[in-house]
Amino acid sequence: MKKIRIGLIGTGYIGRCHAIAYSQVSTVFSLDAELELEYLAEITPELAIQKAKEFGFNRSTGNWRDVVCDPNVDIVDICTPNFLHKEIALEAIKAGKHIYSEKPLALDAKDAKIMYEEAQKAKVKTLVGFNYIKNPTTQLAREIISKGEIGEVVHFYGTHNEDYLADSNTPLDWHCIKEKAGLGALGDLGAHIIQMAQFLVGSDIKRVIGDMETVIKKRPNPNDIAELLDVENEDQASALIRFDNGCMGSIETSRIACGRKMGLSYVITGTKGSIVYTQERMAELKLYLHNEEPARQGFKTILTGPLHPDYKNFCISAGHGIGFNDQKTVEIRDLINGIASDSIIYPDFEEGFKVSRVLDAIALSHHKKCWIDVDSIA
Amino acid sequence: MKKIRIGLIGTGYIGRCHAIAYSQVSTVFSLDAELELEYLAEITPELAIQKAKEFGFNRSTGNWRDVVCDPNVDIVDICTPNFLHKEIALEAIKAGKHIYSEKPLALDAKDAKIMYEEAQKAKVKTLVGFNYIKNPTTQLAREIISKGEIGEVVHFYGTHNEDYLADSNTPLDWHCIKEKAGLGALGDLGAHIIQMAQFLVGSDIKRVIGDMETVIKKRPNPNDIAELLDVENEDQASALIRFDNGCMGSIETSRIACGRKMGLSYVITGTKGSIVYTQERMAELKLYLHNEEPARQGFKTILTGPLHPDYKNFCISAGHGIGFNDQKTVEIRDLINGIASDSIIYPDFEEGFKVSRVLDAIALSHHKKCWIDVDSIA
Amino acid sequence: MKKIRIGLIGTGYIGRCHAIAYSQVSTVFSLDAELELEYLAEITPELAIQKAKEFGFNRSTGNWRDVVCDPNVDIVDICTPNFLHKEIALEAIKAGKHIYSEKPLALDAKDAKIMYEEAQKAKVKTLVGFNYIKNPTTQLAREIISKGEIGEVVHFYGTHNEDYLADSNTPLDWHCIKEKAGLGALGDLGAHIIQMAQFLVGSDIKRVIGDMETVIKKRPNPNDIAELLDVENEDQASALIRFDNGCMGSIETSRIACGRKMGLSYVITGTKGSIVYTQERMAELKLYLHNEEPARQGFKTILTGPLHPDYKNFCISAGHGIGFNDQKTVEIRDLINGIASDSIIYPDFEEGFKVSRVLDAIALSHHKKCWIDVDSIA
Amino acid sequence: MKKIRIGLIGTGYIGRCHAIAYSQVSTVFSLDAELELEYLAEITPELAIQKAKEFGFNRSTGNWRDVVCDPNVDIVDICTPNFLHKEIALEAIKAGKHIYSEKPLALDAKDAKIMYEEAQKAKVKTLVGFNYIKNPTTQLAREIISKGEIGEVVHFYGTHNEDYLADSNTPLDWHCIKEKAGLGALGDLGAHIIQMAQFLVGSDIKRVIGDMETVIKKRPNPNDIAELLDVENEDQASALIRFDNGCMGSIETSRIACGRKMGLSYVITGTKGSIVYTQERMAELKLYLHNEEPARQGFKTILTGPLHPDYKNFCISAGHGIGFNDQKTVEIRDLINGIASDSIIYPDFEEGFKVSRVLDAIALSHHKKCWIDVDSIA
Repeated sequence: MKKIRIGLIGTGYIGRCHAIAYSQVSTVFSLDAELELEYLAEITPELAIQKAKEFGFNRSTGNWRDVVCDPNVDIVDICTPNFLHKEIALEAIKAGKHIYSEKPLALDAKDAKIMYEEAQKAKVKTLVGFNYIKNPTTQLAREIISKGEIGEVVHFYGTHNEDYLADSNTPLDWHCIKEKAGLGALGDLGAHIIQMAQFLVGSDIKRVIGDMETVIKKRPNPNDIAELLDVENEDQASALIRFDNGCMGSIETSRIACGRKMGLSYVITGTKGSIVYTQERMAELKLYLHNEEPARQGFKTILTGPLHPDYKNFCISAGHGIGFNDQKTVEIRDLINGIASDSIIYPDFEEGFKVSRVLDAIALSHHKKCWIDVDSIA
Repeated sequence: MKKIRIGLIGTGYIGRCHAIAYSQVSTVFSLDAELELEYLAEITPELAIQKAKEFGFNRSTGNWRDVVCDPNVDIVDICTPNFLHKEIALEAIKAGKHIYSEKPLALDAKDAKIMYEEAQKAKVKTLVGFNYIKNPTTQLAREIISKGEIGEVVHFYGTHNEDYLADSNTPLDWHCIKEKAGLGALGDLGAHIIQMAQFLVGSDIKRVIGDMETVIKKRPNPNDIAELLDVENEDQASALIRFDNGCMGSIETSRIACGRKMGLSYVITGTKGSIVYTQERMAELKLYLHNEEPARQGFKTILTGPLHPDYKNFCISAGHGIGFNDQKTVEIRDLINGIASDSIIYPDFEEGFKVSRVLDAIALSHHKKCWIDVDSIA
Repeated sequence: MKKIRIGLIGTGYIGRCHAIAYSQVSTVFSLDAELELEYLAEITPELAIQKAKEFGFNRSTGNWRDVVCDPNVDIVDICTPNFLHKEIALEAIKAGKHIYSEKPLALDAKDAKIMYEEAQKAKVKTLVGFNYIKNPTTQLAREIISKGEIGEVVHFYGTHNEDYLADSNTPLDWHCIKEKAGLGALGDLGAHIIQMAQFLVGSDIKRVIGDMETVIKKRPNPNDIAELLDVENEDQASALIRFDNGCMGSIETSRIACGRKMGLSYVITGTKGSIVYTQERMAELKLYLHNEEPARQGFKTILTGPLHPDYKNFCISAGHGIGFNDQKTVEIRDLINGIASDSIIYPDFEEGFKVSRVLDAIALSHHKKCWIDVDSIA
Repeated sequence: MKKIRIGLIGTGYIGRCHAIAYSQVSTVFSLDAELELEYLAEITPELAIQKAKEFGFNRSTGNWRDVVCDPNVDIVDICTPNFLHKEIALEAIKAGKHIYSEKPLALDAKDAKIMYEEAQKAKVKTLVGFNYIKNPTTQLAREIISKGEIGEVVHFYGTHNEDYLADSNTPLDWHCIKEKAGLGALGDLGAHIIQMAQFLVGSDIKRVIGDMETVIKKRPNPNDIAELLDVENEDQASALIRFDNGCMGSIETSRIACGRKMGLSYVITGTKGSIVYTQERMAELKLYLHNEEPARQGFKTILTGPLHPDYKNFCISAGHGIGFNDQKTVEIRDLINGIASDSIIYPDFEEGFKVSRVLDAIALSHHKKCWIDVDSIA
């Protein structure tokens, strides 16, 4: 069996989740290739050594360029802060590597487009870490919609709200700085619900008009609490959207939504039924079907189980539950098998680019105070 | 004690709810005046006689003008279809009657403005039936916000979604005809959430941009099922909004939202906490406070009870629950006591006019594809 | 139309709820008789006068015996503390009056039996105020079960938990004194869930074994907080039960269940489905049907509406909600129409007696530490 | 660092979950020893080879005795059907191995006692797979209780209900045969809630009285559907319980509870608050504290996160969720670290024996129709 060798760059929050998923994926799924945790890069050689040991990688380095060029690396896995995605990806593409990048793909759609086009030219495989669509529950939602069980989708409402910056005393970090993060809540969280919207409705977003606001305009300097620094991007944003297929919708995102820890949610209305979901109850899909006996109609709470996509590999009993890292495990299965069998991987850099366009269109529409066509961007 | 005499016009859906509320209000509350159910009008004398008997009214008529002019009527209660509100109200004002009108106040903001101004000139008291703000739970939400418990409100998301026209086989009725209903979902349902938004945030909506759609474009003629007639107003609408105080928000409304029976809901985010509510669980307010001990934070489900506004008059035990008509009962208490004591009644025709302006601004913004200032309307 | 005249004794908590229900019942329902609020008794003539005015009764008295003997009273409505039920009921029966009594029927099954037998001999109509079974949602549950939709019922779990005495500083009141209240949580709350169990399962409880405890053994004397008095009956009780039809079950009740305001709930398991309900969400019935497509199974949340028993008289739209007093309104409709048409009223003194037997059997089984046959009681 | 070598026996349902947990545990946690997946036994050499490859074990065998005696195995991990637990464990103890056994420990308390006593004599470490208590949410519940946040616990209600045998057409399997499974629902599911009760209340169960029933008395022979075979143990059981510390409670378990997929749940009432939990929403703990401001009281939904026990090793953001296998991962961490540091492991064979005693006491009390002291068993 073919061996596929991983080069991981970045071991913070999400890098660690990748590592956990790598460790279990070959046990959970029957992969089409053998996975080798080959090379790991961190900001210093010392940290890289420590993390390589912790995550079970063969080798380590303090310089990400070593990973990108290494002949024994097949996939470059980019888990760095957003502003490094582009440079690393372009170097990796140049070296002919497949790429597994965290979202958002780039700081703006212009950069994302370059990355997507270069990857396409180089014929390398790509995957962007929109992991929540890999959850069996959201896969089930997509299955219900694509089978027409709720009829034609006529409205999509989606949110990704969290509260990690709700406290005005939380010091400024890279998320709040334009040249490090690009957009604020939109880039960090909104990217997920926009991508999920396109996945679920089965159509791209075509037109948007948005509104946004930096509610907490200054935050303490992390190195000198007494000093206040400017927050450079939005804390919250809302947008009306229209999909290519004509479906109406709206999207909201916030990083200051007090009480929301994992407020990725959707309400999808069709001509024959509706679906309601929140990632905070990630095992439950609520489904309403209009054609049931009138006096027995209601939203049904379906607990995901072995009859739903990809669940049974984790556990053969329903309702026992999968976790955040298990979603990443499904994602890695898609990546590895897609490369091994040279088949289409989704969501790839093209989708990453499309999401970036929507994000930029929302920001632009806010400034121009009018609707923006998404394909007028980049 | 002063006697206040009611003249009820219209006994359909909401007229019946008024009648039930009238029947119990003097037992539930200690009113500042004695209530007399004096005169009732319906479309025919026969129906009026029957309903007067059923609802306990002294006299009846097949002509609403009799009620409006009757010297023994103090309050004209308008429960007719929307298109009659204006004419009846203006006649009643001319006759010096106080007016209790169902929402929406008029078919458009221009008419609503005339009604509000005439009522003001005539110094008659008015109340518009935005009954849901009279629920103890929503009154509690307002109390929490006005006391600053969730800090400054930075985002308001609200919906009023129902599914009474979700089925494309449901024949056309007056709700779908412009000259009878004015707007569609916006006028019938959106009016409630817009008024509630202003009540809860404590600020008027200043600017809007909306999108709307008539999803089901034709419906069977109720008199000849084989014939299809045009639906003349929107099935669903969404809007981004900004309040006078700068607060961001968005609003959605639909009459084809499969599965939603009473989908009036709000999510209010403040700088120190959040509130979540849906009228389908009308006894529960969810409250999150950011300043609680970090490892014990969470949304608290408060079941309304005797410690919350107006609840204890119905029952002195918490969680025992009040119903739809009980909200109307609180509303009538406000009306009667406001008249008896010559004090301010809320929400009155001014608020009804303000809501109509927002509705018209949303519709206009949809057609013009740009943000509309609410006070540019009417 | 026949006139039926009410004599109300007691105007506290539940007496007030009766009064509210009386005030609206003739508007909500089309009754088979005309209702007259004739006579009201309270502990003093002054209080009686005040309450008669407040509740709209024609006459009042400070002596309940006046009501019982009055030739212009048809129904004696007993809303006094428990210990007076028996004496008043027996006097009323002697006077040939129909009786509407609050639960529990008597302080023990022996007394309840006498009341039931005397009423039967006198051929007067009786109704005991187990109002929660009149809620459309619980009526729907009964309908689902009796139609066999969940197959044969094989397990019933029910609770009635509240927290009105959870605080050990709450002074002693009559609920805690045996000769005033009889049993503690069992008599006050457990009576409801036991009666509801029999109603829903459609079979009487045959055998029980219970456990109970007075958790807070002493409480402040209400007249002298420094003094502690003995609590004479149980704060909480649990029992295993078997119904006549063989169905297994268990019951719990508590008056110190922190956080439960209206914790009347049931989980009913059948061979083909299940039902879950809590009175704190009184508009929602959760229904699971085993024979649905496996990958689409789940508990459905049915919001009660006009298609469910007795709902449409309050409002013709689903999900708009009815309240506690509306349940009493349905109860009074059953009482008045049962008397007017001389038909069976449920739940009557026989059912009240059966419930008392179960309560006494649970208490006895606790003391004897063994299973008790219910029909060995009284 | 010391190496600890695993010998896994059985690779069905739960064996597979162990394998997934083994694969990720060293990445998730910083273990005190190096884990080696050494030896795997299955029913045939062929299946063993396949599973060893799938799960990453070094060697395999078709005979479990090879694993038990192997000098390179430190821990024998027993994932076989229940009836084999005893024999394998005793052989392993004889060989001086530490033991990780699935629940229930044995078919009855007599056997469990032998296993516990032999392990104790041999001074080997043991752990029984009551994995649900390793969930951060239930660990949080224990923390809240042990810190006295809800005061003294006065009532415990717990269930473990599932529906895997709800369908009477499901053929007979080993769960239904006494000599293979011992008890039915009690042994398979009840064991979990009983152990969890003791963990959460912090006291052993002392006295019980139970009721049980085999609802579906015959099931198809899996090898000949036309033939019906006897079900030899209970489908459902209920019991009243008393803990050593006097706390009252009750327990229910069923394998035919239509709609319940993971119905492990508890309601814990204390003198100052309450806790409510269901494993179907495994990330949510509901907490009510009586001493909050009266008009702001309610059950708070705490979403587990990095501030709660063992969560942050999986993900540093709250509400992102852990899955079933992650609980097993925590369990294995406890096992490995307990052995490496020679410290106490919980829950061990002593706890497994105590649980078996309670199970047998419930069954005996059902047959004797009276309360049974748990320490009178075995």
